[in-house]
Amino acid sequence: MSRSSSQKQQRQKILLEKIKYDPFLTDEELADFFKVSVPTIRLDRLELGIPELRERIKHVAESNQEKLKSIEGKEFIGELIDLQLGQSAISLMETNSSMAFEKTHIIRGHYIYSLAETLAIAVIDAQVALVGIANIKYKIPVYSGAKLVAKAEVKESKRNRFIVWVKIYEKNVEVFRGKFILVTVQK
Amino acid sequence: MSRSSSQKQQRQKILLEKIKYDPFLTDEELADFFKVSVPTIRLDRLELGIPELRERIKHVAESNQEKLKSIEGKEFIGELIDLQLGQSAISLMETNSSMAFEKTHIIRGHYIYSLAETLAIAVIDAQVALVGIANIKYKIPVYSGAKLVAKAEVKESKRNRFIVWVKIYEKNVEVFRGKFILVTVQK
Repeated sequence: MSRSSSQKQQRQKILLEKIKYDPFLTDEELADFFKVSVPTIRLDRLELGIPELRERIKHVAESNQEKLKSIEGKEFIGELIDLQLGQSAISLMETNSSMAFEKTHIIRGHYIYSLAETLAIAVIDAQVALVGIANIKYKIPVYSGAKLVAKAEVKESKRNRFIVWVKIYEKNVEVFRGKFILVTVQK
Repeated sequence: MSRSSSQKQQRQKILLEKIKYDPFLTDEELADFFKVSVPTIRLDRLELGIPELRERIKHVAESNQEKLKSIEGKEFIGELIDLQLGQSAISLMETNSSMAFEKTHIIRGHYIYSLAETLAIAVIDAQVALVGIANIKYKIPVYSGAKLVAKAEVKESKRNRFIVWVKIYEKNVEVFRGKFILVTVQK
């Protein structure tokens, strides 16, 4: 195997990992990271069968929304890109100035909270789930334009009571974390 | 003093108190409570100089929004009917079906959270205040159509760190409570 083809193999392997952890990465950012050209990244994506950013998000969001149980697709806040019912879920949200305080351009807490709460409910494998208690922490101010990745994990599930942790990241830096205690109720 | 005029005096005294604690009370509800006719309640309001429900809310909300420091009037969620900067605040929100889960008609938590968070920020006597930590509890499910009264109280204020309690009631029953730790930042 030539040196360049093994380099390519390694790059594609890392590229897959990177996109998995941060689905918001653009071709430009990937090219910059790997110190290759944008067309090289496009070729990598083609070979790996990974669609372009917007398509990628749209496609996975649609297919995941069909799996939702405790929440209707149109009620979902953010874009759902992964859902393992009863276990874990990932969603995305692009922030904009309409979500920010006018004075500071800092995203208002309740938009971040809504992203987290929606995901915490969505991950529960039940028809109806409600938040009972939430302990949340905003770690770093998030500014207008930030692209957020939310990850939920079910930590405990006993009969009708669930504990879900949600962490929200911007460029792999944790900006928010919340512990949600949910209960399921008869419909 | 005749018996009926002393009865009237007492009724008006209680009426003032009742409206103070639950500004959403309609003339019909008050008439029902006092076992008098609706016109009698209207007369009482006229004599006491208390406007009709909608006017009452609109008027106080407008005059209070002018006092806001940490949040712009148009950014406020709910209607602000009382604001003692640095001490306490009261706001109202009428819920509707657009805020509820389709399946259950239960109001989604993040709408209630937004009402509470906004009030917690508004009560701080500073140009910019952000939530750092929030511990919240949804006590009873709130159904579409419920009229909510949120009350915030500043419990602690040390330099740039504040603890604010927000309790939300429906018909004087507590449906939500939250402890918010806020920090003020340089603009």
